[in-house]
Amino acid sequence: MATYTSAALSLDCAEAALERYRQVRRATLRLAAPLSAEDAMVQSMPDASPAKWHMAHTTWFFETFLLTENLPGYRAFDPAFRLLFNSYYKSLGGHPVRAQRGTFSRPSLDQVLRYREHVDEAMEQLIARGISLELLPMIELGLNHEQQHQELILTDILHAFHTQPLRPAYAADTLADNQSSPAALGWISYSGGIAEVGATAEGFAFDNERPRHRTLLEPFRLASRLVTNSEYLEFINDNGYGRPELWLSDGWDTVCAQGWRAPLYWEHNDDGWQEFTLRGMIPLQPARPVAHVSYYEADAFARWSGARLPLEREWELAAAGRAIEGNLLEKWALAPLPAAPGDGGAECQLFGDLWEWTSSAYLAYPGFRTAPGAVGEYNGKFMCNQFVLRGGSFATSATHIRASYRNFFPPHARWQFMGIRLAMHER
Amino acid sequence: MATYTSAALSLDCAEAALERYRQVRRATLRLAAPLSAEDAMVQSMPDASPAKWHMAHTTWFFETFLLTENLPGYRAFDPAFRLLFNSYYKSLGGHPVRAQRGTFSRPSLDQVLRYREHVDEAMEQLIARGISLELLPMIELGLNHEQQHQELILTDILHAFHTQPLRPAYAADTLADNQSSPAALGWISYSGGIAEVGATAEGFAFDNERPRHRTLLEPFRLASRLVTNSEYLEFINDNGYGRPELWLSDGWDTVCAQGWRAPLYWEHNDDGWQEFTLRGMIPLQPARPVAHVSYYEADAFARWSGARLPLEREWELAAAGRAIEGNLLEKWALAPLPAAPGDGGAECQLFGDLWEWTSSAYLAYPGFRTAPGAVGEYNGKFMCNQFVLRGGSFATSATHIRASYRNFFPPHARWQFMGIRLAMHER
Amino acid sequence: MATYTSAALSLDCAEAALERYRQVRRATLRLAAPLSAEDAMVQSMPDASPAKWHMAHTTWFFETFLLTENLPGYRAFDPAFRLLFNSYYKSLGGHPVRAQRGTFSRPSLDQVLRYREHVDEAMEQLIARGISLELLPMIELGLNHEQQHQELILTDILHAFHTQPLRPAYAADTLADNQSSPAALGWISYSGGIAEVGATAEGFAFDNERPRHRTLLEPFRLASRLVTNSEYLEFINDNGYGRPELWLSDGWDTVCAQGWRAPLYWEHNDDGWQEFTLRGMIPLQPARPVAHVSYYEADAFARWSGARLPLEREWELAAAGRAIEGNLLEKWALAPLPAAPGDGGAECQLFGDLWEWTSSAYLAYPGFRTAPGAVGEYNGKFMCNQFVLRGGSFATSATHIRASYRNFFPPHARWQFMGIRLAMHER
Amino acid sequence: MATYTSAALSLDCAEAALERYRQVRRATLRLAAPLSAEDAMVQSMPDASPAKWHMAHTTWFFETFLLTENLPGYRAFDPAFRLLFNSYYKSLGGHPVRAQRGTFSRPSLDQVLRYREHVDEAMEQLIARGISLELLPMIELGLNHEQQHQELILTDILHAFHTQPLRPAYAADTLADNQSSPAALGWISYSGGIAEVGATAEGFAFDNERPRHRTLLEPFRLASRLVTNSEYLEFINDNGYGRPELWLSDGWDTVCAQGWRAPLYWEHNDDGWQEFTLRGMIPLQPARPVAHVSYYEADAFARWSGARLPLEREWELAAAGRAIEGNLLEKWALAPLPAAPGDGGAECQLFGDLWEWTSSAYLAYPGFRTAPGAVGEYNGKFMCNQFVLRGGSFATSATHIRASYRNFFPPHARWQFMGIRLAMHER
Repeated sequence: MATYTSAALSLDCAEAALERYRQVRRATLRLAAPLSAEDAMVQSMPDASPAKWHMAHTTWFFETFLLTENLPGYRAFDPAFRLLFNSYYKSLGGHPVRAQRGTFSRPSLDQVLRYREHVDEAMEQLIARGISLELLPMIELGLNHEQQHQELILTDILHAFHTQPLRPAYAADTLADNQSSPAALGWISYSGGIAEVGATAEGFAFDNERPRHRTLLEPFRLASRLVTNSEYLEFINDNGYGRPELWLSDGWDTVCAQGWRAPLYWEHNDDGWQEFTLRGMIPLQPARPVAHVSYYEADAFARWSGARLPLEREWELAAAGRAIEGNLLEKWALAPLPAAPGDGGAECQLFGDLWEWTSSAYLAYPGFRTAPGAVGEYNGKFMCNQFVLRGGSFATSATHIRASYRNFFPPHARWQFMGIRLAMHER
Repeated sequence: MATYTSAALSLDCAEAALERYRQVRRATLRLAAPLSAEDAMVQSMPDASPAKWHMAHTTWFFETFLLTENLPGYRAFDPAFRLLFNSYYKSLGGHPVRAQRGTFSRPSLDQVLRYREHVDEAMEQLIARGISLELLPMIELGLNHEQQHQELILTDILHAFHTQPLRPAYAADTLADNQSSPAALGWISYSGGIAEVGATAEGFAFDNERPRHRTLLEPFRLASRLVTNSEYLEFINDNGYGRPELWLSDGWDTVCAQGWRAPLYWEHNDDGWQEFTLRGMIPLQPARPVAHVSYYEADAFARWSGARLPLEREWELAAAGRAIEGNLLEKWALAPLPAAPGDGGAECQLFGDLWEWTSSAYLAYPGFRTAPGAVGEYNGKFMCNQFVLRGGSFATSATHIRASYRNFFPPHARWQFMGIRLAMHER
Repeated sequence: MATYTSAALSLDCAEAALERYRQVRRATLRLAAPLSAEDAMVQSMPDASPAKWHMAHTTWFFETFLLTENLPGYRAFDPAFRLLFNSYYKSLGGHPVRAQRGTFSRPSLDQVLRYREHVDEAMEQLIARGISLELLPMIELGLNHEQQHQELILTDILHAFHTQPLRPAYAADTLADNQSSPAALGWISYSGGIAEVGATAEGFAFDNERPRHRTLLEPFRLASRLVTNSEYLEFINDNGYGRPELWLSDGWDTVCAQGWRAPLYWEHNDDGWQEFTLRGMIPLQPARPVAHVSYYEADAFARWSGARLPLEREWELAAAGRAIEGNLLEKWALAPLPAAPGDGGAECQLFGDLWEWTSSAYLAYPGFRTAPGAVGEYNGKFMCNQFVLRGGSFATSATHIRASYRNFFPPHARWQFMGIRLAMHER
Repeated sequence: MATYTSAALSLDCAEAALERYRQVRRATLRLAAPLSAEDAMVQSMPDASPAKWHMAHTTWFFETFLLTENLPGYRAFDPAFRLLFNSYYKSLGGHPVRAQRGTFSRPSLDQVLRYREHVDEAMEQLIARGISLELLPMIELGLNHEQQHQELILTDILHAFHTQPLRPAYAADTLADNQSSPAALGWISYSGGIAEVGATAEGFAFDNERPRHRTLLEPFRLASRLVTNSEYLEFINDNGYGRPELWLSDGWDTVCAQGWRAPLYWEHNDDGWQEFTLRGMIPLQPARPVAHVSYYEADAFARWSGARLPLEREWELAAAGRAIEGNLLEKWALAPLPAAPGDGGAECQLFGDLWEWTSSAYLAYPGFRTAPGAVGEYNGKFMCNQFVLRGGSFATSATHIRASYRNFFPPHARWQFMGIRLAMHER
């Protein structure tokens, strides 16, 4: 998990900590606001979780890892919640079967909101009474953990609403793209050589971003923007889903077994292609980045294009040192947006819009070590059968993403806000 | 489905019809009253349905089969509900996948309640305006249909609450048995011979209870009461779940695959055997009838006892002509109760307490015909791989059960309120 | 299993016993003769078994139930076979997983043939030395058991050859039907009333055919012959596989899940419909009885025809007292044959050609009891989720079938030699 | 697949080519010699294939990629084999379902042997008539392909024999270890830095070994030998299979779902631990390398040891330039052997004994390109969800392995001859 050489560099005083704590916790409530108690309970597939569960589990994190041991006299809101809202941590004594989270009508959403208030009050006390420097990293971790679940609230409710026959919209569609053709696609050249990647010892980062280390890169080129819906349509219309030579073997098996013919939320009807989004079912927007494609699809599209996907270290080299700007959660677009028109001469969409699949398997950096205790069960346990994604999406907070951030999903996953940036070897 | 030779024998005037309509519809609301919107949405396994779905589907029946065609000017509450709350009827153009009913957060419980009010108002109009005699059977069918779903609301919420870690109780446990040992078990002899079984042409009955026909019975004996928890415990303690020679082959495979060691809701802890009930988790009551056993378990228990299960025609012969009295829904016991102490010289518990497994496969009576149209898809479609159960349970309304009533479930089903009455051949 | 009131009525002396023993055992070798060691090892689905296994298991029966206890000094051919070739009997201490019988390369076919010789020699000794009357029923049971497996050798190798890409033929196609249209279909009337069904106490019968008992029948009519391929084609061409209202609910689910569009071994190519048979792939013969249909298909076809399937007691009433004649194994046709041209005024094809689905669930007769010990695990264990078939097929020996014989399979099974005879209520 | 800058460096003349061709083809026959036709047909799980299939498929490769186009007048042995023995290549028009290879009794083993002779004669003609330099790489590829399947013949027959109740031995156990304690374990230090890895353009290599490229390594240490059975027993006895903190998340799920408690072929009985091997069931040999462990187990063992698995580039750096010597197929040990006693001061067991799991995901080297056409479907299709193994096993020919050779399997696979070498970061 997070490692610090000196304490509290990002949270330099209790006041700042308090402010950040309140901000993150409020953001969760804002995301949940459009949901009824019934909406907040849906689990439409085992990989997804109900919004109510996300709200409770993130709260459980603070109760379990901070309040119980560090706030004298703290009384658990409900002792049963310790088991109930554990997600994974085996060292904490088990947890309910993941696929049945959607059958929990109790505790109610009201109780979960009271649980949040109970924990928030205690956390305010804990921080206000002069928190020791050792606890700050754990608070920062809890807040970053909650920000991860904020994005999942959106990905999971989109899936939940898509599963339902009535297809409700999370938010009204007030968005006009004013752009029907994509910005020009350019290729940016990078010279390669020896570079450093990974998070430095300063500031917050997840354990899997460390240690920072040297790596060797061949010269390469990156596309100046994400692949658009209209470009992806060409792949579909060129029978991309029907040609096994374009696909990884596992990918082709998945295409056949699942009957994939388009990205997850696309539907074709008499009015042409439609896409289900957080703003409901809308006509496919050609200039927007293609979303909800698996690694298999990203890889097949790249092969069809005569290009490839970037390595994670190539992506990081391109992003390093740039300002964290883009179509991120704070903009509340709730959708990936077309790249700003331009000449393709500079990278855009690196942060925000959509997570970008890389061709790097999610593995440990040289010298990686997990933290001792339960928080060590965070990232290292998943280092097989996953690929790295980079850059965050429109559902990622600007206070959460950075150039060294490593997200990861198995190659068949499609329900996250994930897209494609192409790369190639420099010739 | 229901067949009538002359119209409206059980509903002799619009006023009576209206009264019965209101009574049944109100009973559904009473059953749902303890449930929150979240509770009413849980589907804890594919065979069960959310209470909200039961409430909407029974309403859909009246809208679809009565209002749309017979009430001039009727406007559907929501046209999407026609598809949404169809359970099965293929001739009505499809229905959502059954196993995903629990993911429907929309429509909300509030909307479903408004849907019920909308349909109730229209039904009152329909009935009040001088209903034609032809419609009465369909109303009666709709009400019996709703009463079937009333029982399912209870069986399904018990399963739903059992699945949840917090194990909520549907109702407070205010019940004292005042009886720790079972009533004496007697055997009642019947002489057999040619008898008539099945529903007569008078009054309401489901299609599968007809035609009434002659059948030949050997002399037999029926147990005077249901098998109790303490008797079933003897079977468990005699390694009943570990001896393949006691079981049907499919039953033994199920025992091994599912790890069955006791009835569905039994749990053994430091305080001994507990049972999860509508009144929460309580210590096993020895004198109560054993509930939530499959046909496989009922059959194995009977073999272990040196007895057998009754044929459905044997049961019907014993029940024919008796008053519909017993531990039925109107008593609101919400549990099967010990047989009244006695000398075992007379049948008891025939109606109510628990549905009784018979060894009769659920098949058509000689000359059986399904009704034309969609309502014909009611009972005949299920005539394979099911066994007949008789007599109703504590969750069955006294206005719904009768001696000829044929319930049916596959032999592995355990989540209904089902128990065991023994029989044997007369020696 | 078999029950006798007095011993040895069908095997009245050792010589006759020996002759019958040799005849049955030789018949197995004749059936296996066209198979290579590799052919004899194939298991193409869990329900089927390799021919080698059938040959060994039937031999195991004699070794286990006769030689071990009754022939002084008998030495088992290989002690490991006791476990290896047990099919089911739990009381004999376990058996290998059924679905993996096809992975047994050892023992080799040669060894199994030597095992048969070893047991045959010992059985000859046992019989020759003056066998006690008590053993004759067990020998008769062993021989009937082997005759059951003889039919399975053919049904299973047909499935095995169908699964293989090269589609080998079991026997050369030397059969000419000389008949392209079916014999006329007539309806034979039966008056019903009280009849006795089941095997009498004399002679060999399986336990499930007893006790003989009285039953009550309504007047009914039976079709004079089996349904033909050309009649079944009409059902297909009338979209029989696409109309849910014709099907049981489980049947319709199976049709959809399995993509059924025709009987098991039918294929449509540029030359029209073909059928894979023991004589290889041949053009569909219109006048032959339709084979390899499930209960679901038989039931749907009957409903489409405006008729129904017979009850097993109706079939038995029609067959009782008739000579065991027809297209049975001894004719070596290896296929069902067209009904002899006639006026439809008399039943034909009752014995042989194809097993006939009845609408009777496979359940115990009144007063049924299983035999004590391992042989009691024979027929009673399967009394759920199966339907009865009657009359034998072209693969059944004339010395094995009788009017009271009850075969049974689950309603989805299609790989046996099974067909359809229609029935209806007398109007 | 294989790429060449100049032709035929490893096959410098037709005579040498012929000699190598004969040698490889004879080796296959030697491996199959102990197998009966029935043995050669077993497929004990979908991932494995029957020996007969391996023998035919390797022959099919030569017929398909060499004879059909290059030998004028060549007549296919059987046109049906083109489809029948295609393993994977989608561009060649389909292939039978992999999991049903074990049901093919036809063609017989005899026919497959004749098929091999037919193709061998034609190949001899093709080579003898003055083969063009362009064909030599394809011949070399075909021979390396056959050598891969030679190893699979052994891994698959071991699994097949293990599945069978009689547990036959592939070869007699004539092996004495004469060593009950492992050689001393030492750690060899490597300084890291920039190194070149991958195959050079000279000589044969698979496509996935190229292009040779520079990489950056941190200083590291490698264990001097493989982990032994006795060391692995310590892990088991320390509850290694019961502690989730030692395992990857997917690994722990697999341990729980499969009930893993030891390597694949280990069994514990009254005489202690036994291991099933090509030489039958034998007592566990403490000094031999532990075999048949998955990546999950190798990774968990390494974590428990306080070490880690090597990267594939670390392994290659250690092996580069060494002679191809060790316990390889030509020694016919048919088992991994104890490391020669020594002081741990030098690497041993790098080549042969067991394939060594690395912590490197199987991915493309920078600049990797697949060959055009069907042979391009060889290695690139599998670049996801697999880990790289290095060094060959006792079942790998010395003429087939090299330092740059990349084998790969999914992390749950255990039936290959795979073991563990530890690594750690230089401190």
